[in-house]
This record gives sequence, C-alpha cells and structure tokens, in this order.
Amino acid sequence: MALDRLIEGIKRTKNPTVAGLDPKLDYIPEPIVRAAFAEYGETLEGAAAAILTYNKGLIDALCDIVPAVKPQAAYYEMYGWPGVRTLCETIAYAKKKGMFVITDGKRNDIGSTIEAYAAGHLGVTRVGNAEIPAFGGDALTVNGYLGADGILPLVDVCRRFDTGIFVLVKTSNPSSGELQDKPIDGEPVYRRMGKLCEQWGEQLPGKYGYSGVGAVVGATWPAQLSELRAALPHTFFLVPGYGAQGGGAADVAGAFDKDGLGAVINSSRGILCAWKKEGCAPEDYAGAARREALRMRDDILGAL
Amino acid sequence: MALDRLIEGIKRTKNPTVAGLDPKLDYIPEPIVRAAFAEYGETLEGAAAAILTYNKGLIDALCDIVPAVKPQAAYYEMYGWPGVRTLCETIAYAKKKGMFVITDGKRNDIGSTIEAYAAGHLGVTRVGNAEIPAFGGDALTVNGYLGADGILPLVDVCRRFDTGIFVLVKTSNPSSGELQDKPIDGEPVYRRMGKLCEQWGEQLPGKYGYSGVGAVVGATWPAQLSELRAALPHTFFLVPGYGAQGGGAADVAGAFDKDGLGAVINSSRGILCAWKKEGCAPEDYAGAARREALRMRDDILGAL
Repeated sequence: MALDRLIEGIKRTKNPTVAGLDPKLDYIPEPIVRAAFAEYGETLEGAAAAILTYNKGLIDALCDIVPAVKPQAAYYEMYGWPGVRTLCETIAYAKKKGMFVITDGKRNDIGSTIEAYAAGHLGVTRVGNAEIPAFGGDALTVNGYLGADGILPLVDVCRRFDTGIFVLVKTSNPSSGELQDKPIDGEPVYRRMGKLCEQWGEQLPGKYGYSGVGAVVGATWPAQLSELRAALPHTFFLVPGYGAQGGGAADVAGAFDKDGLGAVINSSRGILCAWKKEGCAPEDYAGAARREALRMRDDILGAL
Repeated sequence: MALDRLIEGIKRTKNPTVAGLDPKLDYIPEPIVRAAFAEYGETLEGAAAAILTYNKGLIDALCDIVPAVKPQAAYYEMYGWPGVRTLCETIAYAKKKGMFVITDGKRNDIGSTIEAYAAGHLGVTRVGNAEIPAFGGDALTVNGYLGADGILPLVDVCRRFDTGIFVLVKTSNPSSGELQDKPIDGEPVYRRMGKLCEQWGEQLPGKYGYSGVGAVVGATWPAQLSELRAALPHTFFLVPGYGAQGGGAADVAGAFDKDGLGAVINSSRGILCAWKKEGCAPEDYAGAARREALRMRDDILGAL
C-alpha cells in the first residue's frame, strides 16, 4: 500500500517531513533564470526550464535526508503546458531518486471525470494498446466537497496501482472555519470529513496501521490536529502550514502517534527560500535548502 | 464583466447552452485516432493530437449556434502534458471562433497558491518582463471548501482581467447531498455557499444583473435549482447534468429568470457522442454534434 512506502521512507531517514516544491520564479537564483531565458527567451518554456533545473538541484540535495516531495500543481500550471511538462519531469526525477511524491492538486469531480483524474495522477492512461502513467506521482491531494462519488473512484484506482490520496479535512488558512468548523448535527464538518477518510480507508489497509486514504490537516490548528489524531487512528496526516504560515514544532506535535508516526509535515517556502533567508551565495541554494531541512527535522523531532 | 460576454453570446445565438469538451479517446472517430497514431504512435502525444483535431471539428460545427464551450481539465490531464497543451490550444481555438470558454477545473487552494491558479487560468503569468496568458479561458470552475481565502484572490484577478468564476454550490451527482445538503444552523451547506456567491459577486457587478461569480448547480436537482434561482438573483448558474446524467428540459427550466436568462446548460457526452447515437458515418461526427446541439437548444427553449 502506497503510504507504507512513505512511512518506510520516514523511518529510513528518521524524518517525518516533506519538501513542498512550489517554485515561483522569484524563488529561483538569478543565474539559473538567466541561463534559461538565454536559451528560451522570457517565455513559459524559459520559466519551465528554470524551474526544472532548480527542482533537480533541490531534489539532489534533499533525497537522502527527506523522504518525500510535494509539488504543488498550481505553480506549474501557471506556466502553462510547459510548466506542466516540468511537473511531470520533476515527479519522474524525484521518484528516480527514491523519494515519495505527493502531487498537490486538490482535484475533485465525479463519475468518469474523477476517473480521468485518477488515471492521470494515480494510475495509467490507456492509449491504443499502451498503458501510460501520465504524471506518475505516488499520491494526490483531493477535495471531498462532492461526497463519496468524488472519492471512491480514486480509492479504486489507488488499490489497483498502489497509490494513495490525501483528502482535505481541516485546511491551514484563517478562513477554513467558514465551512469546515460549522457543526452538522452537532459535529463540525472537518470531523465528519475525517470520519469519512477512516471509512474510505478501510478499502486500502496498510501494514503500519495507516490506510491509503490520508487527510490534510493544517499545522495552524494544533487543537484540531490532536483531536483528529485521537479520533482517526488509521488516517495518516499531511500537515501544511509549518513555517511561513505560522505553525511551529509544538503545534504539529499532536499530529503524531506515540511511535512518532502518523504524520508528515510540509515546508515549502522555508526550504525553497532558505538561501535568501540565510544570505548565502545563490549558487548554494540547494545547500541552504538541505541545512533548513535538517534544522526543520531536528526542530520537529525535538518536540515529539 | 466577463459573464456579460457569455450573456451576450446567449442572446446572439438564442441558445442558453454550453458544449462540454470532455474528449475521451473512445469518443473520437477511429479515422482521426488512426491518423494521429500513424504520426505519433500510441503515445500521449498521439492521443493529444487526435483530441485537438476532434475538438477543432466540433468547435467549427458549433461556434455559430452555441455560445460557449466548457473543456473539462481532467480529460486533458489524463493525457499528461501533451494533453494539457491540447487544452491550451483548444481554448485558443474556441476563443478565436468567438466562443466563451469555461475551463472546468474545480480548482481550489489558498494564499499564493490560489493566486497561481488565478494567474494561470484567469489572468497572466509574469516571466521576466513579459506577461503571458498561460491558459487563457474566460472563466474557471472553483471549489469553495476552503472558505473566502480560497475565493477572494480569484475575484481580484477576475476584476483585473475581465474573467469570471463558477463556484460549486450543488453538484449533480447522487452523493452531493452527503455534505452539501446538510444543515448548518438550519440552512443547508449549498444554500450557504450560494449566498457566499452573491456576496463575493458584489465585487464583480455586470450590466445584465448577474455578477462575475457564478454557481454550479446540477440539473439533477430541479427543486434546488428553482429555490436557488429565487434566492440568488445576481448569481448566474452553470448547470451540468442535462442528458447523460438524467436531467431533462423540464428539470432545468427553474434555473432561468423570467427573461429566459440566468443560466447556461451544459451537455458533454450528448454532443460529443451524438455521431454514435445517431449511427451516422464517423466522418460526420461534427455534423451530428451540431444536430444534437440544435435539438438540445429547442428542447430547452421549449420548456421555458
């Protein structure tokens, strides 16, 4: 089961974190951008080429100490189809380097449409007699607003292709409570969504007690993290919001079980922009990312 | 305001419908697929080339009688980055032919990430000194589970670039009620989401009384369509679920105001697969699509 592989990566590296690859052009050292523009001009192709070089450098620097990457689809789509090509190439490169890849797309739809997303991101696409993995990630973030019709077809593909999903439960943003905290029959929406994850996950059991249906729960809501950890014993958590969004190590401690498993904490800007914060030479951006990843690991392990 | 252009297209063609471009390879006449495979092999590029040819034929056959197309992103993503390139090219072709383009992506995220989706789908992406429209659609479907943080950045970009959004309110699928029908303080989630559309839409007023923040409401829920039409006087509806999903002309009549405006009804499979249903020669797939689009128009206008 796919999330078993993530857990084994966490155990191997002794690091329950994931590096978010949200590569805005502003984050990329100028020499990389300049070289790409020299070859392709100030075009979407040029931006996409710069991002791929930057991502490969980060993956090379992180792959032995961080078990997973989470490319955020929006930052690739904003550079059009060349950006999406870079997303595909980034996923392939990270997998080749042994990393678990969570494509952060928050996809959602129903019927044959969600099957199309499932095929593209979590399975294979049939073309004539060929079966081709279009994106090739290990897991995908998804949104459950549409109900079970939008989730069960994904679970089915996950079972067949050994992949996983993370369902949005309690997001990290300030206004997440506008809907997610509202009580339905006395129970907040996020808790109902969490219970659905437990239920859907029964179809994808894992050997470490966690299913292939994980949940996204923000680091900015420590009380809900602890509450959900207790209520959802088989649901693995993907936790955004550490660092730039204000979540600290103490805030995320409640996401973990007594064995220090059950969650993976994401940092995007903290790692991507470490070179700017550190003030090191731009050429050392990957070294700075590695130093920040180690600092984050120690910060979080210190709070467990 | 972007939805004014959609309304003007509906008035010009006297046709409140949109053709959903959800091009599964199975829907495409074999000669088109064979020619693409002959050039590119049974690859994602081959599939993407076949889809582009097929889409252009449909757009040519529909552009004078149907005001809008709605390409569903999932069916392009399933063919990887070549599929996404075909999505971009399809959008550009439909716009060149004077059609309003709704990219059906149901995107959702927060902060700088939703800004990236907004730039890519509804605005422009900055690359060096260039500002490039990456996808170039007129409107995007979005999911409001994350609250206002996930919507307001989109509204801001819509104002600057004369584009619009359609927020999922009550989706057409059988299990949409699992969350959307549940009462919060005595009011179902879908109605709360609808009221938020009215509120967000105040920032994008249009000259026909409808704002740039529309709502997705399924044809399969006629009672809720009528209820929401009355409750949301400034919110334009995108209505999926006509035809293949079971909604008929009588079911969607309640989506319209007394002037016959206020909604656009989508048909995807009905139009795309008309040639199969009609049993005409595969070469006449676009003609069959046109005949079905005219039949659908008359069917819906007949019920108003």
